[in-house]
Amino acid sequence: MKNTFGQSVSVTIYGESHGPAVGVVLDGLAPGIPVEEDFIRSQLTLRRPSGSISTARQEPDPFQILSGVYEGKTTGTPISIMIPNSQTRSKDYSATRALARPGHADYTAYCKYHGFEDFRGGGHFSGRITAGLVAGGAVAISALKAKNILIGTHIQSCGGIADREFRNLEEDIRNLNQKTFAVLDDDKAGQMQEKIRQTAEQKDSIGGILETAVLNLPAGIGEPWFDTAEGVLSHALFSIPAVKGVQFGNAFSLVNSYGSEYNDAFRMQENQIITETNHNAGINGGITNGMPVIFQCAVKPTPSIYQAQNTVDFFRKEDAVLEIKGRHDPAIIHRARVVVDSVTALVLCDLLAGRFGTDWLA
Amino acid sequence: MKNTFGQSVSVTIYGESHGPAVGVVLDGLAPGIPVEEDFIRSQLTLRRPSGSISTARQEPDPFQILSGVYEGKTTGTPISIMIPNSQTRSKDYSATRALARPGHADYTAYCKYHGFEDFRGGGHFSGRITAGLVAGGAVAISALKAKNILIGTHIQSCGGIADREFRNLEEDIRNLNQKTFAVLDDDKAGQMQEKIRQTAEQKDSIGGILETAVLNLPAGIGEPWFDTAEGVLSHALFSIPAVKGVQFGNAFSLVNSYGSEYNDAFRMQENQIITETNHNAGINGGITNGMPVIFQCAVKPTPSIYQAQNTVDFFRKEDAVLEIKGRHDPAIIHRARVVVDSVTALVLCDLLAGRFGTDWLA
Amino acid sequence: MKNTFGQSVSVTIYGESHGPAVGVVLDGLAPGIPVEEDFIRSQLTLRRPSGSISTARQEPDPFQILSGVYEGKTTGTPISIMIPNSQTRSKDYSATRALARPGHADYTAYCKYHGFEDFRGGGHFSGRITAGLVAGGAVAISALKAKNILIGTHIQSCGGIADREFRNLEEDIRNLNQKTFAVLDDDKAGQMQEKIRQTAEQKDSIGGILETAVLNLPAGIGEPWFDTAEGVLSHALFSIPAVKGVQFGNAFSLVNSYGSEYNDAFRMQENQIITETNHNAGINGGITNGMPVIFQCAVKPTPSIYQAQNTVDFFRKEDAVLEIKGRHDPAIIHRARVVVDSVTALVLCDLLAGRFGTDWLA
Amino acid sequence: MKNTFGQSVSVTIYGESHGPAVGVVLDGLAPGIPVEEDFIRSQLTLRRPSGSISTARQEPDPFQILSGVYEGKTTGTPISIMIPNSQTRSKDYSATRALARPGHADYTAYCKYHGFEDFRGGGHFSGRITAGLVAGGAVAISALKAKNILIGTHIQSCGGIADREFRNLEEDIRNLNQKTFAVLDDDKAGQMQEKIRQTAEQKDSIGGILETAVLNLPAGIGEPWFDTAEGVLSHALFSIPAVKGVQFGNAFSLVNSYGSEYNDAFRMQENQIITETNHNAGINGGITNGMPVIFQCAVKPTPSIYQAQNTVDFFRKEDAVLEIKGRHDPAIIHRARVVVDSVTALVLCDLLAGRFGTDWLA
Repeated sequence: MKNTFGQSVSVTIYGESHGPAVGVVLDGLAPGIPVEEDFIRSQLTLRRPSGSISTARQEPDPFQILSGVYEGKTTGTPISIMIPNSQTRSKDYSATRALARPGHADYTAYCKYHGFEDFRGGGHFSGRITAGLVAGGAVAISALKAKNILIGTHIQSCGGIADREFRNLEEDIRNLNQKTFAVLDDDKAGQMQEKIRQTAEQKDSIGGILETAVLNLPAGIGEPWFDTAEGVLSHALFSIPAVKGVQFGNAFSLVNSYGSEYNDAFRMQENQIITETNHNAGINGGITNGMPVIFQCAVKPTPSIYQAQNTVDFFRKEDAVLEIKGRHDPAIIHRARVVVDSVTALVLCDLLAGRFGTDWLA
Repeated sequence: MKNTFGQSVSVTIYGESHGPAVGVVLDGLAPGIPVEEDFIRSQLTLRRPSGSISTARQEPDPFQILSGVYEGKTTGTPISIMIPNSQTRSKDYSATRALARPGHADYTAYCKYHGFEDFRGGGHFSGRITAGLVAGGAVAISALKAKNILIGTHIQSCGGIADREFRNLEEDIRNLNQKTFAVLDDDKAGQMQEKIRQTAEQKDSIGGILETAVLNLPAGIGEPWFDTAEGVLSHALFSIPAVKGVQFGNAFSLVNSYGSEYNDAFRMQENQIITETNHNAGINGGITNGMPVIFQCAVKPTPSIYQAQNTVDFFRKEDAVLEIKGRHDPAIIHRARVVVDSVTALVLCDLLAGRFGTDWLA
Repeated sequence: MKNTFGQSVSVTIYGESHGPAVGVVLDGLAPGIPVEEDFIRSQLTLRRPSGSISTARQEPDPFQILSGVYEGKTTGTPISIMIPNSQTRSKDYSATRALARPGHADYTAYCKYHGFEDFRGGGHFSGRITAGLVAGGAVAISALKAKNILIGTHIQSCGGIADREFRNLEEDIRNLNQKTFAVLDDDKAGQMQEKIRQTAEQKDSIGGILETAVLNLPAGIGEPWFDTAEGVLSHALFSIPAVKGVQFGNAFSLVNSYGSEYNDAFRMQENQIITETNHNAGINGGITNGMPVIFQCAVKPTPSIYQAQNTVDFFRKEDAVLEIKGRHDPAIIHRARVVVDSVTALVLCDLLAGRFGTDWLA
Repeated sequence: MKNTFGQSVSVTIYGESHGPAVGVVLDGLAPGIPVEEDFIRSQLTLRRPSGSISTARQEPDPFQILSGVYEGKTTGTPISIMIPNSQTRSKDYSATRALARPGHADYTAYCKYHGFEDFRGGGHFSGRITAGLVAGGAVAISALKAKNILIGTHIQSCGGIADREFRNLEEDIRNLNQKTFAVLDDDKAGQMQEKIRQTAEQKDSIGGILETAVLNLPAGIGEPWFDTAEGVLSHALFSIPAVKGVQFGNAFSLVNSYGSEYNDAFRMQENQIITETNHNAGINGGITNGMPVIFQCAVKPTPSIYQAQNTVDFFRKEDAVLEIKGRHDPAIIHRARVVVDSVTALVLCDLLAGRFGTDWLA
């Protein structure tokens, strides 16, 4: 399978940056789940490029629900949502057609598709394709929320500036889901935005780390092999362009601790089994234990920068220099956040429906 | 799918720590690949617990190839390899049956299997199950080696002690594959082993980071969505007990760099397209670009420690204190390394057969 | 997986009879395959209801290729084709909402979707959904044809009237693919059409058997278990509404013969290995042998008839009588034929790409 | 996927006729299901060759449960059952190595595996491999029986002799499951056995049709596309060697009826919705309606016959004559019956667990 993910609840995406449309087919969701078009719209807006960091307001992506929704609720059949590509400029790409943008997929696309790829604007590799994920994810997020399963993502760090850590998870998540620039500490948000602006002036780009928390997942979700909760989530998360690392509970930092520090002691609390710490990030042996699931995604610096870069012409097989034109984001981490939420929600719907049956989310 | 992974080449594992056997069924490998029982044996030996760090020599796991091999070569049909569990001590586990070992899957197993799980020795969650992966992986590693695709893993860091970085990848990999304790710098190996011994004396445990390099993978392997090379590898790697993070090209450290530093410039070298640096770790847009694929796995400290730990009795739903008996490793990272190699090889065989057809590896 | 079929080449369909659109996402086809919109259009026309048997000409379904095609060729990324639903009459279905049409899926849809299904015009169970399969199948048929793999289907029997048997397969297939009413013997075509007209006058319906031949498939396609060529084809073919049986080589008639009659003797012919007869229908042990693959699909009589029928009201749980209004086909077998061709082509593309790699069809 | 079938409950088989063992890994069954070794044993006995028709008693296949069962119950983890191959005669096959037995898979195996296949005794294509399916199926049959879902298969016809039709399904199924030669009418059983004996004397073989009924399946199982109940069952059933056709409700005979005859009228009966007839065989629109699911499998005459047959030598590419030696069954339909039951049970467990969650069968 390629552009389809999930077994019980599956998502299929399609589209090219400069083609007629991008879209998603979401299959296997229970019947009877309310579909709020306004929420889909607001989620799509979070994903859109925002020109400058401060100007978040823009016309939202138009979209059309083609199937699977009747009288405002899911029918249980595939939900097809199409998002037309408007105003794709028919600029002439032919001059730089074969100049592989460093850090981008131009060259690997050529290796795979032998030159037949629609290369305009990154084609099928464009971040634009995540609009389908966000539209489908919005339906999944709503379905989970109705079960009190909450997802929230903040920019843990960006360009070297760190946000504060999660404190009260439920409150933090609710706050994050109101924000356009998802940082817990507003001062840090300002610093990050300033950093992004400075970076833009230097014709450069930056990345960072997104941290996601999932609350109220039932214990018992995931498999010991191979469909661990970690494995399935990471599989999907690595699809998000620019994600190059996925860790649970800040694992790469914590591996140097001792077992006596890392182990999470179990305790009874109000007749529930909890752990006193949560270094295992809500997952033991690949299976959720009822504690919050916490993970981080490493988002590499946006590869599109305005400086001249060394590269090759892969048609001519010769060295070349590339200077990228047009308007590009000096950072996409604040936009990637809604994609992480969306992908997470889609994966969780799949795991939950597989565990408890197709009607569980209804 | 649960205990099966892969589409074109798939691997199915089974077994419990104290059941009659563990094993693997490896399906979809091309016919005609030589199967060397000695290599399977030596790989299994690398995975075995080694009592003390210094005594690596022990009787290897016996194993039996039940199908799929004829006259020393794969037939193209499922390769079933069974590894009997010898000398499982019928000790009485009932006293601590319901005391969830912190960091272990006892409690989540109970949430998932409702008490029917074979809990003895960790049951299906035991690291013992990876013996099947290693046996199957040995066949995959050989198949790849015949195509000059080389895999090597070293302990990048353990208990705070860092190995040197990869230099000459091909030479480093060949050296690593001769070593029982896979560290590039022998001085650092000694320090790590000393650290492990000290940790054992403190009744504690440590973890670390494994770093893997894959050489000579063809360009064009992987998908933009959802089966990115990163995503499929991470999905499988997270099955390995104790792995809590997977990053490509040390992404969590590098995200704070600028795009101008992170981007890998393309260059022509002897008529081949290469990149001058390799921060993207051989993968652009989810697809291999022909450069070495490099990734790191965060291995948490072994959860079994000899100190008294707070926990709960999940039958009685009450607080408890647990003191683990028996012999446990203060570190498993040096043993996990062969599992990482094996899983990597199995995943790559799947991706290659999917891309180039079932006979490509023959 | 539900509305998605195939592993190497997969097809996802969506839509409801009276929703905004039906459509298909075809993923995994090699890059560089020409996509002829005229051929898609003519295939869609073959599937359309034709009012009377004799009036085949009607406006074709409009469709839009949303992705995966660039400059007239496949790019290798998902091909999304949308077919808007025009002129769905907003008639009032509420009176008969809960009256299960015998032979239809109204009641089982209710069991599965709990009343949230879009029941108008059969919703997601409508034959209308096959338009997506036909559009996607047209691309697959073209790809196969370029490899000289030919598919043809005729009405083996309809309402008790039998067509002649296949003779010269290649010629027969080429002729069939020119015909709107796919019968080898034109006299029999006339008799069948007359029979359909008479049946319509009786307010009744008829079914029949479709027979399909596939030429020039390479030997070696399919698996012994479980993805036999027969099994994978039948899996997909049973999705076609009204198909209730799939046999290879007229098996249900031939099972009473002796082994000495049924076995197909191998012979050399022009240095090729062929069989003298073809009772095994081109498949031995689940794998193609290079001979034509021949199968038959039993198509039940169209369930929509104008006679009063006993049924139940499944909301009220009481007996009822239903008289269906509107315009319905007294036979759909002549329209189902293009769906069988399409499904067959999609399955074969999947099997071929899985066997020979993703580029084989290019 | 090749030798693995199913998504929520999956089955993986392996083995060659003359290798060390055949076996099965059954994954995804709910924890807590009793596993009766005696029942597995008796099911395996039904599948064994019986020398003469009348001598059914023979030593049963030995088998060993390697994992997934603890204290007599499923644990929820993979159930691995190995069945050693005893007494495989090391006879010399080299003389006829490349002479393709007509109707067998020798030649297609060669096309697929390029000569590396273990050809001895049919290798991986041998009916022997179904022992794994029967062992795994026995566990599935027991699980379903505990939910009152009953499966029974009889020989509908063999060598031209027809059994009586099903009457009281529940009683008929219970009777069939006591019988070694599964025919409802004992007189017909005697005639069939006599026919098989006569056929053996003629050095020939015969086939027939198996008819299966499944009782008490819940309504709402299956999908409209592509995982129809019919499609998923047929996919698996075609794996059984010699099955060349699958129909539901005798579809190939009934297609010549009128819709007014074929449609199954719904009625209320004791507050349940039933159909007065069951031509649709318990399935509407791919989804079960609560009525018995009834299907027939066409079993071709056993390809192994003792007469001299024309064939080719596929190494030398020349015509040849083959005379098969050894002991072969003149019919296998009476043995295939338990395989059909087993495959059916495995598929239904998968569909049920997918619909209602992994614990439903517990």
